[in-house]
Amino acid sequence: MSEFNLIRRHFTRSTPSALLGVGDDCALLQVSQGNVLAVSSDMLVSGTHFFADADPYLLGHKTLAVNLSDLAAMGATPRWATLALSLPSVDETWLAQFSAGFFALAQHYQVDLVGGDTTRGALNLCVTIMGEVPVGQALRRDGAKVGDEIWVSGKLGDAALALAHLQGNVQLSDADFAAVAAALHQPQPRVALGLALRGLAHSAIDISDGLLADLGHILAASQVGAQLEFAAIPTSSVLQNKSSLPPFFQQCVLAGGDDYELCFTAAVSQHTELLRLASALNLPLTCIGKVVAGTGCVVSDSAGNPIQLTRGGYEHF
Amino acid sequence: MSEFNLIRRHFTRSTPSALLGVGDDCALLQVSQGNVLAVSSDMLVSGTHFFADADPYLLGHKTLAVNLSDLAAMGATPRWATLALSLPSVDETWLAQFSAGFFALAQHYQVDLVGGDTTRGALNLCVTIMGEVPVGQALRRDGAKVGDEIWVSGKLGDAALALAHLQGNVQLSDADFAAVAAALHQPQPRVALGLALRGLAHSAIDISDGLLADLGHILAASQVGAQLEFAAIPTSSVLQNKSSLPPFFQQCVLAGGDDYELCFTAAVSQHTELLRLASALNLPLTCIGKVVAGTGCVVSDSAGNPIQLTRGGYEHF
Repeated sequence: MSEFNLIRRHFTRSTPSALLGVGDDCALLQVSQGNVLAVSSDMLVSGTHFFADADPYLLGHKTLAVNLSDLAAMGATPRWATLALSLPSVDETWLAQFSAGFFALAQHYQVDLVGGDTTRGALNLCVTIMGEVPVGQALRRDGAKVGDEIWVSGKLGDAALALAHLQGNVQLSDADFAAVAAALHQPQPRVALGLALRGLAHSAIDISDGLLADLGHILAASQVGAQLEFAAIPTSSVLQNKSSLPPFFQQCVLAGGDDYELCFTAAVSQHTELLRLASALNLPLTCIGKVVAGTGCVVSDSAGNPIQLTRGGYEHF
Repeated sequence: MSEFNLIRRHFTRSTPSALLGVGDDCALLQVSQGNVLAVSSDMLVSGTHFFADADPYLLGHKTLAVNLSDLAAMGATPRWATLALSLPSVDETWLAQFSAGFFALAQHYQVDLVGGDTTRGALNLCVTIMGEVPVGQALRRDGAKVGDEIWVSGKLGDAALALAHLQGNVQLSDADFAAVAAALHQPQPRVALGLALRGLAHSAIDISDGLLADLGHILAASQVGAQLEFAAIPTSSVLQNKSSLPPFFQQCVLAGGDDYELCFTAAVSQHTELLRLASALNLPLTCIGKVVAGTGCVVSDSAGNPIQLTRGGYEHF
């Protein structure tokens, strides 16, 4: 099968939001009046971000989800994406399932796949996602203010627990693994939350490399520090049951990557409004600490003593 | 070295054309009034698109050049790019040279690198390029009209000849190889030509997979056919000296990839204007045939007989 037939069969859908979609040298896109373009690229590599035998449908979902998560963290409305992929060979079944997972999520968020590239090589998936955000309303990392409350969505650490199970570092029952595997394999980008946080949050980031690492980017960009209470950080009952292993538990919660929840800061005066929003979105939003003057992040255990991690967020090299 | 230090050291330059550049979840970009966004993604894979020991400076140039070529073929003004790369290991010298080659070309065209990703994996370079084109002025593939003349810029086949030498399929003297290697290793995107062709050309494409394959996309999109005269196609004296091997010669000219010249069609009435443009740009523009009713492309040799190729354009799979 030629590259062109491959693209036609698996990666060409209608692109109602584009002036011109797949099939020319470039796609042509019209950014809506009063909006700026938000752009991010993420590359997923076999053996680094996923196992070579990963379920292709879920992989298609996750490839787009991690990119949508970047738009969510910016408060942007998803619009368009390009997908470049290198494949060791043409596996029709794999491609059909991968593209089905990708397009299911794309359709949910009305994202048009407007271009990309297909080539031979080690399995590598690179998405560039594009969205729109009204001028001046993007959620940036550099807006945290001393006195802000620090919030996270959902629960943290399940993706790291599921990965530890797959790597043989912990043993989970089938039921427990099933309960946490979705966080790893089918993360839900918090797009609706990101949109709702426009005008509410002072800063936001998505948690891809671990809470402390990602919150650390907000703190560094905003030139502030943070105090967190470990006990306040929302976790699943499956993960809590592993709390007989405190260092591992803390590692999953504070440094586990791949959660794709949002971490954001907002004025104390917005506390009630944010709880109302959580209810409206049917998504837990939890205040886990506060922004303070200074630098760095101190996490206190229930006795008020600082927790020291053995290692920080995910490091690629 | 952490991913963040790597990005800071090698891939963070000022981004005067962006509202927000590297360092947040997304870059924020303002498309100029009256313009639409032109977007394209290209992925270059070690062992497929370049040799693993390729000169990193030239590879940095080429990684951006092949993407700029897509903007050129659309008549778009280059503005921004993202770069996602996976690396087997961190080689500071390699990274410094690669980024130097990339940024030298980026600065020439005032392209801001506004985001991307860095991860561990087989060497893979994925650029998404973004440009602007006034509403309705993009050069598309589907605008060729019966009676149009077919033009190409520069000379064709040198990149294929250089590659054949590197693969041991032909033997070139050092001087001859030096004369054609630039086409392979340091292609010059025809950005100025693309901009000048707005309002002049009816259709355009860049020649990345070979003249017949790429012209074929124009013909298919425009639902027309073409007649070409082989002798009219511009080639270098080095390649002409290999014309004692007619099938190989024809293959390089008609099906050699990686030239990154533009192929475009325009009304006969623009013939003189296009020759004036060639002179103004100091870039050969050559009429090589005409658009006819029907489908497909017939290439005639000097005796008027059709040339049959043993294989078509570059196929990835």
